[in-house]
Amino acid sequence: MTAKHTADDLLPEGLADALPQEAATMTRIMRSVLDAMDAHGYDRVRPPLVEFEHSLASRMDGVTPRRMFRFTDPASLRTLALRSDMTVQIGRIAATALADAPRPLRLCYAGEVATIRADQLDPARQRLQMGAELIGSGSVAAASEAVALAVAALEGAGLTGISVDFTLPDLVDALADKALPLAPDKIAAVRRELDMKDAGGLADAGGADYLPLLYAAGPLDEAFEKLAALDAGGVLASRLEGVRAIGEQLGEGVRVTLDPTELHGFEYQSWIGFTLYAEGARGAVGRGGTYTIRGTEEPAVGFSLYIEPLLEALGIETPVRDTLFLPTGHDREAARRLRALGWRTVAAITGEEDPRALGCTHRLDETEAQPL
Amino acid sequence: MTAKHTADDLLPEGLADALPQEAATMTRIMRSVLDAMDAHGYDRVRPPLVEFEHSLASRMDGVTPRRMFRFTDPASLRTLALRSDMTVQIGRIAATALADAPRPLRLCYAGEVATIRADQLDPARQRLQMGAELIGSGSVAAASEAVALAVAALEGAGLTGISVDFTLPDLVDALADKALPLAPDKIAAVRRELDMKDAGGLADAGGADYLPLLYAAGPLDEAFEKLAALDAGGVLASRLEGVRAIGEQLGEGVRVTLDPTELHGFEYQSWIGFTLYAEGARGAVGRGGTYTIRGTEEPAVGFSLYIEPLLEALGIETPVRDTLFLPTGHDREAARRLRALGWRTVAAITGEEDPRALGCTHRLDETEAQPL
Repeated sequence: MTAKHTADDLLPEGLADALPQEAATMTRIMRSVLDAMDAHGYDRVRPPLVEFEHSLASRMDGVTPRRMFRFTDPASLRTLALRSDMTVQIGRIAATALADAPRPLRLCYAGEVATIRADQLDPARQRLQMGAELIGSGSVAAASEAVALAVAALEGAGLTGISVDFTLPDLVDALADKALPLAPDKIAAVRRELDMKDAGGLADAGGADYLPLLYAAGPLDEAFEKLAALDAGGVLASRLEGVRAIGEQLGEGVRVTLDPTELHGFEYQSWIGFTLYAEGARGAVGRGGTYTIRGTEEPAVGFSLYIEPLLEALGIETPVRDTLFLPTGHDREAARRLRALGWRTVAAITGEEDPRALGCTHRLDETEAQPL
Repeated sequence: MTAKHTADDLLPEGLADALPQEAATMTRIMRSVLDAMDAHGYDRVRPPLVEFEHSLASRMDGVTPRRMFRFTDPASLRTLALRSDMTVQIGRIAATALADAPRPLRLCYAGEVATIRADQLDPARQRLQMGAELIGSGSVAAASEAVALAVAALEGAGLTGISVDFTLPDLVDALADKALPLAPDKIAAVRRELDMKDAGGLADAGGADYLPLLYAAGPLDEAFEKLAALDAGGVLASRLEGVRAIGEQLGEGVRVTLDPTELHGFEYQSWIGFTLYAEGARGAVGRGGTYTIRGTEEPAVGFSLYIEPLLEALGIETPVRDTLFLPTGHDREAARRLRALGWRTVAAITGEEDPRALGCTHRLDETEAQPL
């Protein structure tokens, strides 16, 4: 048979099929990540693909309706949107249907999210997002559990060379009050220049006192040493103690760094944010942090992983799998018994199949599997 | 904490969250169904949520663009749609990316589908569809495999009292040619009256000869007996032999019926269609049949299951699960070891939690799990 490609068969930019081996790898990774979350007490919930646009945009800062697929609901005449992020949905569930569930509430999720425009670095407009959220606390203990679970989920899926880069998203706000006084109208500019790592701009913005923060990025101990000089009022000390406690409970094999002024993507986190990296993936494999759920103002901490960088790190797996060809008129009961033992079977339909071309390694001979 | 419901928190009509126990039951059912398909040699593929509207509508008759969520793609300025059915996507993959893969090609899928308007019987606008398609043959052997796999998947998920109701979608077209001659312009009306089971209408439409078909529904043997008198040219006989062969390979526990003129939902199937029922579900739990992939005109057979009626039949499961509370300062290594043995753990965050309220049955005491 020859392919009959027509324009109709092409997929829109940034949307793709996962074919068998890729899809099988995705399924294995996803099950492994969800199983790790489940083992740590996180209950999976399944919010819908589509919600009111306003609901998706109102629960958390940073979710932009302009990036969502939107349409008018003929039932309500309101604007609906295809979700671009599931964290906001978990926040909604925690604030409504599970408002009276005991805290801390542990929820996890996995599902497709989509954006109408790709971002500059990644042409994909659909992603498979997986994550866990602990609702009711944003303490060191809560953040510590979130980071440890993220690492355990990645390790469980097979990733190696994992590193965690911490940041302190609200550091400038916290220091501006007393330790390194800064007029409220200058905070935003100082944060921006710190995030841009622009020393000249920082001085111009009136943040000269904050310069040492710029040079304090690196392995935890080094960063702590450089930051030690800065701390006047204990605001920094309590945060650094938190980061240290979180870092210490991670295994020896996990590299831990601190970039206290990194803000990109953490604009809406509270005291701690973290980015996860692993061997073989160019970009981040996940990120998370503490935050506040809008409306109920409950503290929370969580993280999201996306399957695409995990696939990049792990590669598409092609396990050699014993597969049993069942010839025409085979013993159905024997085939059923062998499947129950874990065999994958491929039955003859035309009687003219080439078992090897169909990926078979064995053939059912009477009631026994014989190598091809 | 008290719930703070606002209008923003309400979900659009026909869209709902699956909360922990329901979501866990769905995950278990879905894994079980996918595992059954995998064991029979079906490879999972993951097509995207969104495609060009024209592509989703052109591969198969019966997929109506008006029922889909649609929007303009800013990248191509063409109309995109959220998928309302995954079978058409499998057909597209078989006809394009996997056009050169050996036949028969076995593919399976599971994913969310959505429609902008609910149908009269079911208010849901999002469903979880699961299915398997065998591409390259629509023979008795192929249909037999599809029906047996559908039953095995349902049984594997825990359903009981399964019955299969067969229909012969193109029967009138096949008989009209010679056995029960009918002018081509009368075929559509006769099919319609048969589907409506309207004897008077059938006679008025010029289909008096087809009356016996109306009374031939029921258990396979009875239906066959009633139909035997009708067959002049062997057209019916070959179809009945096919149905008999397919029915015979199903286990004793599966009830098999034939309603040769049932057409609703099978308008686009070729020689055989089937509807699956199970104890505890009011409506069908799945349906399938033979068909032709538009464009490549390849024969195929497959079936779809929807998780909602499976949930209705099985109920939301609430398994009692051993869950281990980990007090503040617990032995992390012991907790890790117990998780590896299959324990679910819930760690203390505030130190003031009530382990029972969090669903725990045990508590970690030094390195041992003690019942609460």
